[in-house]
Amino acid sequence: MSLSSTITSLPEIDQVMEQSMHAFLEYKKINPKQRAAFLERIAFEIEALGQELISTTQAETNLPEARLLGERGRTTMQLRMFATMLVEGSWVEASVDHAIPERVPAKPDLRKMLVALGPVIVFGASNFPYAYSTAGGDTASALAAGCSVVVKAHPAHIKTSRLIASAIANAIAFCNMPANTFQHVEGDSFETGKALVQQPYTSAVGFTGSFSGGRALYDYAAARPKPIPVFSEMGSTNPVLLLADALEKNAASIATQYAGSITLGVGQFCTNPGILIAIASPALEQFKSTLVTAINQVPASKMLHQGILAAYQKNRSNALAVNAVRNLTSEIALNQSDATALIAHVSGADFLKNEILKEEVFGPYAILIECTDIDELKLVWNSVSGQLTTSLMGTDLDFESHPELIEMATTIAGRVLLNGVPTGVDVCASMVHGGPFPATTDSRFTAVGINAVKRWVRPVCYQNCPDHLLPDALKENNPLQIKRMVDGNPYQ
Amino acid sequence: MSLSSTITSLPEIDQVMEQSMHAFLEYKKINPKQRAAFLERIAFEIEALGQELISTTQAETNLPEARLLGERGRTTMQLRMFATMLVEGSWVEASVDHAIPERVPAKPDLRKMLVALGPVIVFGASNFPYAYSTAGGDTASALAAGCSVVVKAHPAHIKTSRLIASAIANAIAFCNMPANTFQHVEGDSFETGKALVQQPYTSAVGFTGSFSGGRALYDYAAARPKPIPVFSEMGSTNPVLLLADALEKNAASIATQYAGSITLGVGQFCTNPGILIAIASPALEQFKSTLVTAINQVPASKMLHQGILAAYQKNRSNALAVNAVRNLTSEIALNQSDATALIAHVSGADFLKNEILKEEVFGPYAILIECTDIDELKLVWNSVSGQLTTSLMGTDLDFESHPELIEMATTIAGRVLLNGVPTGVDVCASMVHGGPFPATTDSRFTAVGINAVKRWVRPVCYQNCPDHLLPDALKENNPLQIKRMVDGNPYQ
Repeated sequence: MSLSSTITSLPEIDQVMEQSMHAFLEYKKINPKQRAAFLERIAFEIEALGQELISTTQAETNLPEARLLGERGRTTMQLRMFATMLVEGSWVEASVDHAIPERVPAKPDLRKMLVALGPVIVFGASNFPYAYSTAGGDTASALAAGCSVVVKAHPAHIKTSRLIASAIANAIAFCNMPANTFQHVEGDSFETGKALVQQPYTSAVGFTGSFSGGRALYDYAAARPKPIPVFSEMGSTNPVLLLADALEKNAASIATQYAGSITLGVGQFCTNPGILIAIASPALEQFKSTLVTAINQVPASKMLHQGILAAYQKNRSNALAVNAVRNLTSEIALNQSDATALIAHVSGADFLKNEILKEEVFGPYAILIECTDIDELKLVWNSVSGQLTTSLMGTDLDFESHPELIEMATTIAGRVLLNGVPTGVDVCASMVHGGPFPATTDSRFTAVGINAVKRWVRPVCYQNCPDHLLPDALKENNPLQIKRMVDGNPYQ
Repeated sequence: MSLSSTITSLPEIDQVMEQSMHAFLEYKKINPKQRAAFLERIAFEIEALGQELISTTQAETNLPEARLLGERGRTTMQLRMFATMLVEGSWVEASVDHAIPERVPAKPDLRKMLVALGPVIVFGASNFPYAYSTAGGDTASALAAGCSVVVKAHPAHIKTSRLIASAIANAIAFCNMPANTFQHVEGDSFETGKALVQQPYTSAVGFTGSFSGGRALYDYAAARPKPIPVFSEMGSTNPVLLLADALEKNAASIATQYAGSITLGVGQFCTNPGILIAIASPALEQFKSTLVTAINQVPASKMLHQGILAAYQKNRSNALAVNAVRNLTSEIALNQSDATALIAHVSGADFLKNEILKEEVFGPYAILIECTDIDELKLVWNSVSGQLTTSLMGTDLDFESHPELIEMATTIAGRVLLNGVPTGVDVCASMVHGGPFPATTDSRFTAVGINAVKRWVRPVCYQNCPDHLLPDALKENNPLQIKRMVDGNPYQ
């Protein structure tokens, strides 16, 4: 396999996956500390690409340099975080249950740890050319798990993807990893992705992108003779509750905060707050006024590419075409290539009647839903369940008046924010970037943070295995010095 | 809902699931110690059914009293194990990452724990009327997680299922749990199961049984507008390697051990060793001779029901109909109602050519595959991957000669046994009762042991939530005194 290949035929895909399986069988045996060094070397090689990488991505995505420098930092940080996780070692969830020969029936010696699934296919996102793409969280977590990885390059930033692939190839060579531990394939047609998911050696799939794409890959994987796990992270409208007392006390500052979040990065975040829900009140009028004034001052900006801009224009037009929906912001005509921010408005009753208003409008857009009372607010909120995030802007008085809201929030989204904005996804052990369908295809996992590795592993139990034949993580004297569950006692 | 209902129409199923969702929203809020007391009360109420339960099940299943007493003990032990897990509390995988306001960008306070998915449908197994059925591992783990449960009663032991359901109903009343936390529905038609899986409120499915049933439920769940997780535990042939030096040294004792395992409980275990793989040698001849002598002495016995017996007869006839397959055991004619044990024999080359020989023959049956060398043995072994267990009978010399075998075993099965028999599934934290497809529909989970709870939960992250509004598991002063990950450090 060359560094990057354009794949058009099924025999070529079979060859890629055979190579990936072959590499996997070697790579998974490499000890965790060497895998850690490999991940750190990938981070080093990405940094070594220097300005060429940043300039290439700027040209391909219209994203500003400061943003790309920040995203590159997050990407290398993620790789190093997984390296640290591998060196620390407890993530394998090792468990030891000693034999009890005198029990009736006799209890055998049983030991358990997590092992890698096999070759993983990664489909990156257009809006995060580094952090959710070629060497992003899916690739980093799968390589950390001990899986080989095949990245299907995103056509919107193909040159960026090739550069990152070259950095990984350099790290493979430097660290003497199996040659096809990572492979980078190109191919514009949807058939390429479908064939990769259906190939028998493929063991799991990570995807970040649209609902239609993520759902299609999930369906292909489920229909295989041997189904495989698919973690698709798809659209999200990230509903925000603006509670009465919070508006009463802080309408203007909340409006300013949210104007920033809605338009950050031209609204091109999966955690962009696209739905604001509030109860009619004088304070809400003040919120609207401040929000609209702030939004009207945001200059029109270039989106990632013309396709994204066209979809933004179409989706917001679809929303505004609903009779009951008003545009609160200025009617600035779109020029050929820039996106303007927009705040739509609808009543709770009309929102509930129009399914199309629940759909994500990817871009600097939000719809404010004005409800008559708390019951309608809850109805509206529940009707958009299945989210990456949901946010509650409220005071102690608000939460004392409605103690049920935080519990409700946990059924709606994977991350519940109080008095903050959902944009900005911190990378740490407590982060959950996931949520009920359709936010993702499996709410039991996260795509961000060290727990992202759990998507690519399965437990294996060793029964009555002599100590010298056990993996180090399970040996009696615990040579890796990791936290383990011993005889049912957590984390000895 | 009455204690047990025969469900025939879609509106009835909608009603059951609405009630289940309603109960779930209350039940999940009940604190873990009360849930623990509820699980312990179910165990108590099952024991209080006394001899009536045992006699009823004996009449329905032909299983002997000693076996049923043992299985009842395992069932109540499982319930108490999950109660202990709830009281101990670390299973929620709580994680705390403190805010770092001075970081750029500022890091918010983030905390994460596992929460219940929603109403779970449980389809029990015919061969374990207690431990994998109405109040078996799926129900116990789902109730522990905080899910409501709807059990679709197994038609082969419906009276047993009703009695167990009455015990759970008594426990619900005694512990003042929401009325429909557990519901028991009957209905012979496959359509009832399908409709339960497809009902919108259904959040997850646990199934133990045949490949065709488990796969069908998986497919229905995947095709829903909102797909849900299905954990189907299906067939397994549990391949056993009989390595050269082990046979050389212990052919007779291994044969005796396996004659017992193959015929234990009339072979009606999902971990029954159905495939034995060895290399031709004089020691193997001794093994065969001892095994066949022992098997020929096993008296014919009643299976669970006539349908299981008929399937056993058909499946073993299908195997014996393959030209190259020989029956090593006596040609004892089957009587009308009893099953005789049988050992078939085939060469490695012929096994590889005949797909039908890989299929599970549920009953007291095994096929011995005689290979020419270690390479053919590995080919045969790999060709039957996707197992609950695989066993290796070997000496230190065997494993020194072939150090790759144990690593290979981990790709084939969820549990790898050395020098033992796969029948007998110990219930503990290190147990993995699961494995690659088709052993289960998701190899990332186990159906036995405390980790079985992980099938029914998802992580939720709280961002910037005031301490008094957090669940106890995440409060700063750790009132539950559980092991938590704090600022990325495991299990503080």
